[in-house]
Amino acid sequence: MTPAEIHQDAIVIDGLIIAKWNRELFEDMRKGGLTAASCTVSVWEGFQATVNNIADTAKLMRANADLVRPVYTTADIHAAKAEQKTGIILSFQNAHAFEDQIGYVEVFKKLGVGIVQMCYNTQNLVGTGCYERDGGLSGFGREIVAEMNRVGIMCDLSHVGSKTSEEVILESKKPVCYSHCLPSGLKEHPRNKSDEELKFIADHGGFVGVTMFAPFLKKGIDSTIDDYAEAIEYVMNIVGEDAIGIGTDFTQGHDQQFFEWLTHDKGYARRLTRFGKIVNPLGIRTVGEFPNLTETLLKRGMSEPQVRKIMGENWVRVLKDVWGA
Amino acid sequence: MTPAEIHQDAIVIDGLIIAKWNRELFEDMRKGGLTAASCTVSVWEGFQATVNNIADTAKLMRANADLVRPVYTTADIHAAKAEQKTGIILSFQNAHAFEDQIGYVEVFKKLGVGIVQMCYNTQNLVGTGCYERDGGLSGFGREIVAEMNRVGIMCDLSHVGSKTSEEVILESKKPVCYSHCLPSGLKEHPRNKSDEELKFIADHGGFVGVTMFAPFLKKGIDSTIDDYAEAIEYVMNIVGEDAIGIGTDFTQGHDQQFFEWLTHDKGYARRLTRFGKIVNPLGIRTVGEFPNLTETLLKRGMSEPQVRKIMGENWVRVLKDVWGA
Repeated sequence: MTPAEIHQDAIVIDGLIIAKWNRELFEDMRKGGLTAASCTVSVWEGFQATVNNIADTAKLMRANADLVRPVYTTADIHAAKAEQKTGIILSFQNAHAFEDQIGYVEVFKKLGVGIVQMCYNTQNLVGTGCYERDGGLSGFGREIVAEMNRVGIMCDLSHVGSKTSEEVILESKKPVCYSHCLPSGLKEHPRNKSDEELKFIADHGGFVGVTMFAPFLKKGIDSTIDDYAEAIEYVMNIVGEDAIGIGTDFTQGHDQQFFEWLTHDKGYARRLTRFGKIVNPLGIRTVGEFPNLTETLLKRGMSEPQVRKIMGENWVRVLKDVWGA
Repeated sequence: MTPAEIHQDAIVIDGLIIAKWNRELFEDMRKGGLTAASCTVSVWEGFQATVNNIADTAKLMRANADLVRPVYTTADIHAAKAEQKTGIILSFQNAHAFEDQIGYVEVFKKLGVGIVQMCYNTQNLVGTGCYERDGGLSGFGREIVAEMNRVGIMCDLSHVGSKTSEEVILESKKPVCYSHCLPSGLKEHPRNKSDEELKFIADHGGFVGVTMFAPFLKKGIDSTIDDYAEAIEYVMNIVGEDAIGIGTDFTQGHDQQFFEWLTHDKGYARRLTRFGKIVNPLGIRTVGEFPNLTETLLKRGMSEPQVRKIMGENWVRVLKDVWGA
């Protein structure tokens, strides 16, 4: 098979997209051959605003049922593949939407939420994010982890502080992930993970999705898809070929106001970081260019089975482990 | 003047009451000669539930306007004294009701809230309470302290962790308080404050209200009003006679269900502590017995000016400093 045919045939999962949800994006997901994508529906929002986002997304998925379908289990991912649609996994980048109610975890699971990041950049009731001093996982956070384990929601640690991350990895009885991260071995950044951190999560049965978000790449907005592939190879050398996947962090369709909201605590309070100009690596600037990634990884010497694992099979295996189905 | 006459003449402030709000309690406040009391209207409640509590309390105060009056400024405390009523200072034992909105701080100030404890026992968005590992004041917490300083709400640290407390003391530009605490020099307990902590807050212009809550007293429920007086004297020896006041922690009228709510994280999650049986020290079992405290402090050798400061004058001075009026 040619690289294009392999991509066409493979299960392709993007472990993190935070794009503007609309038909144009869903069309691009089909163009890119995405079998499923984890789609952020909560960052700074509380419970009710998040439910509203989910309701809006459900309506949008119904209106575009020729292109996408909701994902509750990995069977839905396989069904999406068979139907040539893209499965939409709802996910949060912040446990803030659970507010102070452990019972909300199961409510959101029933609404289709499959992956929840414990903290986004700063402190919440569960722990602390990676942009401030991190006091670790709270007692309430331990109860939230246990409940996420019970109902089958994967703990994501990408934007979580180092100490809270370590404690969630130790606390969780199910695999946890960095759904979208880069190695600090290639560039030092508060959002990037050290070799030790990558090894620690892998040694404890966890999973790493590799992002290509320009501000965290060595060459920034001058990066190409080869720089992204280099980062994937770097992470694979540490975590092994079974604990790695893709988590692009595509922000396609969003305007500057959205990035201002992301980069301020609670969406409006103090500024936490500045992304600068966001340009995805040349060769994978849009979701539709996803096939180039399969081609690049193959061209650089990865075997077809390795590429298939990285492009999606690993994600499906670990999600089944966490979700139970 | 006899001790009873001094009490009658003095400004008497209770810096912390978390009793069942009703007419019987207001009558007991009058019997006890209370000029004003800081009354808890939020512990685990979020924004809206707290607003509801405040609305209920406002209605209750209107219905009992012959006994009580709301306090917005220290002029209201003096007016209460002149009218022979008890002034009601609304206060929170948890900044949780601010949720993630810095703007809610001023909203609550306008509703009459004068004192807010930063955390109650566990971690919130601001910092961490005294019943779990404490990672200190968060970045958002620093913004909340600045806003409380700006609008004139006093920061209370009684149930706050040691590290968060120290950082609030250093962060605040206005005096902060332990509104109701006991010295760990007399009994080791997570809720009690070390000599170093008492000295630290006093050295930074802060204030200490002394509680008599039986579980934190050396002799527990066998304590008498003399044990309470001993604790007051102990604290005064550390912080001086100008930085000390009363904060009883009267829970009068509440049932077991209320204490279960208090002693579980968020009011329902994991258990944090057990109070056991709650019996206030003999001689000051009810709010109506407040005059006995003035008498006991005088009998044990404090001067009349010292007793007047401790019983209320110091609280009024520090509140005026924080509130600006």
